[in-house]
Amino acid sequence: MERVLREMGEKAVAASRALAVLPPEEKNRCLCRMAERIESSAASIKAANGQDLAAARASGLSEAMIDRLALNDRRIAEMAEGLRVVASQVDPVGRILSQTTRPNGLVITKVSVPLGVIGIIYESRPNVTVDAAGICLKAGNAVILRGGSEAFHSNMILSRLLDEAAVECGLPAGAVQLVPWTDRAAVSLLLKMDRYLDLIIPRGGEKLIRLVCAEATMPVLKHYKGVCHLYIDRECDVAKAVAIVRNAKCQRPSACNALETLLVHRGIAAEFLPPFIAEMRKCGVELRGDEEFRRHDSEAKAAAEEDWYAEYLDLVLAVKMVGSVEEAVAHINRYGSRHSDGIVSSNQADIDYFFANVDSSTLYSNASTRFTDGGEFGMGAEIGISTDKLHARGPMGADELTSYKYLVRGDGQIRS
Amino acid sequence: MERVLREMGEKAVAASRALAVLPPEEKNRCLCRMAERIESSAASIKAANGQDLAAARASGLSEAMIDRLALNDRRIAEMAEGLRVVASQVDPVGRILSQTTRPNGLVITKVSVPLGVIGIIYESRPNVTVDAAGICLKAGNAVILRGGSEAFHSNMILSRLLDEAAVECGLPAGAVQLVPWTDRAAVSLLLKMDRYLDLIIPRGGEKLIRLVCAEATMPVLKHYKGVCHLYIDRECDVAKAVAIVRNAKCQRPSACNALETLLVHRGIAAEFLPPFIAEMRKCGVELRGDEEFRRHDSEAKAAAEEDWYAEYLDLVLAVKMVGSVEEAVAHINRYGSRHSDGIVSSNQADIDYFFANVDSSTLYSNASTRFTDGGEFGMGAEIGISTDKLHARGPMGADELTSYKYLVRGDGQIRS
Repeated sequence: MERVLREMGEKAVAASRALAVLPPEEKNRCLCRMAERIESSAASIKAANGQDLAAARASGLSEAMIDRLALNDRRIAEMAEGLRVVASQVDPVGRILSQTTRPNGLVITKVSVPLGVIGIIYESRPNVTVDAAGICLKAGNAVILRGGSEAFHSNMILSRLLDEAAVECGLPAGAVQLVPWTDRAAVSLLLKMDRYLDLIIPRGGEKLIRLVCAEATMPVLKHYKGVCHLYIDRECDVAKAVAIVRNAKCQRPSACNALETLLVHRGIAAEFLPPFIAEMRKCGVELRGDEEFRRHDSEAKAAAEEDWYAEYLDLVLAVKMVGSVEEAVAHINRYGSRHSDGIVSSNQADIDYFFANVDSSTLYSNASTRFTDGGEFGMGAEIGISTDKLHARGPMGADELTSYKYLVRGDGQIRS
Repeated sequence: MERVLREMGEKAVAASRALAVLPPEEKNRCLCRMAERIESSAASIKAANGQDLAAARASGLSEAMIDRLALNDRRIAEMAEGLRVVASQVDPVGRILSQTTRPNGLVITKVSVPLGVIGIIYESRPNVTVDAAGICLKAGNAVILRGGSEAFHSNMILSRLLDEAAVECGLPAGAVQLVPWTDRAAVSLLLKMDRYLDLIIPRGGEKLIRLVCAEATMPVLKHYKGVCHLYIDRECDVAKAVAIVRNAKCQRPSACNALETLLVHRGIAAEFLPPFIAEMRKCGVELRGDEEFRRHDSEAKAAAEEDWYAEYLDLVLAVKMVGSVEEAVAHINRYGSRHSDGIVSSNQADIDYFFANVDSSTLYSNASTRFTDGGEFGMGAEIGISTDKLHARGPMGADELTSYKYLVRGDGQIRS
């Protein structure tokens, strides 16, 4: 296993060197060729996916999991379309990030370059194979994928089609590779391959991500969880506040940028709480409140300490009453996950305080937290949302999968 | 020990929150106060340093090591001056990195913010305590330092003076802290404190750095080694080429950006090699060549495979003859350390090929590799030179010790 993984690493590095100097139009041609291969191989993809689905049913996987696994004509078309959208985006490589001329005449240009080889470890959904490979390639990177066991046959055929299309476009084999083992041992070996992999991105549950952080010897970009907050300030437009809370909580509760804890200034309780509680009832949201909130809503359950840390991903909302923006900010910095948090307020000083003091990737004033998303930010496709602070924070598009180098042009300069 | 480290982590986080919102002029006043405290405490610093020096002599440390450890009035003045220089630089926090208005009216501003808490693990030199703390603070970060055992007493007093100065300027205690243990166990505990530390920077030998990468659960910024190359192309100004090689190799051989391997196109051997060999003799540089080079220089030793990987940090140079820029680039990408590499050439196509294909942080045309340095790049003080590709690459100044966040201003927007 170790030998095969090492060979994959060497092939990936070789492919990454070719990708790094591929002109944008060639890269985009390659992405479009990949889309064609996916479309023209729909029958084979569905056959491989059928094997995965049969195994999933035999092992008693839940219907929700089976649905995430299933590839039909619509989803195959979406994967192909995703590649074409990525192809149509601005090239992230070769951007001049800065340029200075030093007093000694040296001209220093900082230019964006691909990272090299990116490893992606993910769980069930086979469309990640195509989406992740597409965005990595757009940024000039080779990719080594390690998908979940449930989608093994689907992932194998998809990654093979992508790599074949790259070879047809003149790249060396190895731009897109899938680890042909789905056990833990292969992951552990991969996480030590810092000689080949410049970055590893784990996508999945918190347990997988903690394992990757503990074992990886290369840099990791991760997204632990999204415990997102809204703070309803003493001065605000109550109707807008209720609409924003409803959207953030209910529009897609399973998303990482959905609302999990609501903080309410007690100075607006009388105006805000009655319409808010009525709206949550209508939407079927279970409320878990602190003692003070429960005096306003006798039906609310009592929130325990762990509720403040909880990412429900469901129609459940924790509610806490606070006495100031400072108290709200302290709560978010203590219990939050540095993802997305917002303030609903008409007081500019409170918004400024919130923006300056909350330590999260994305802060909102008077808008839903659901906008934290590469597409909504205008980045095009996204590879994920980073809750890290190093390299990339918040939504990550193709730009975030690049590094830079300094090109220094001289005329015989030596250092004195 | 674990409890004390955790308390240090909590204090550091609290201090980092205060630092993050400190106005630039307050931060700079704090840095200047630190400089004053260092200067006015010179006698106590020298006394503490005397304890370290006595222990170092008793344990038989080399004179070179003792010299690196020693603090005299000049070095104390330099540390204080370093803090004032950092204070005078442009503030790296609060820069607007981008701003866009989305079709739905959301205004998205990407603004630089401090990283939070930075851990620095270093070896002998006590001036690192002051230099590293200064640059971390400039970028609004709290810092937890873990210095080498040889400099323990010096580091203790220096870090105490810095933290006291910060408290005098109104910051909570804990902006600058030193781990009061110098054994391995404290390092291992520190490397698991991802709850408090946003980044760890190891400064020292390759063994220390590999340990940190293997054990750390938080992001690491590191500098493995500098195996720097120059390639002398077939077409070039031979006099300039010789002067650049001499400077890169001899001006400060112990620096990480000093030249270690020279690649020479065989088409320029007749013109370049005689003056080059004469110059190296004059400078006392030992040459280790491949077979072909040794036919031009019978006195050169034979280079073994390990010479191509070697960071000599001494007056030793490996020399290899090549037949093309492609061959030179392949050698650098195989044996180099992604630090600094240069081409001496008057052929623009060869320079372009070299710049596009060498995978290193800093590439030079017709200049010495010795310029890879925060000061020479106009960054002011530097915390190190990254051979990583994530977050920061090449020289790292205060800007590189920041992250960013997105501030999204709305007017009731919800996602549909």
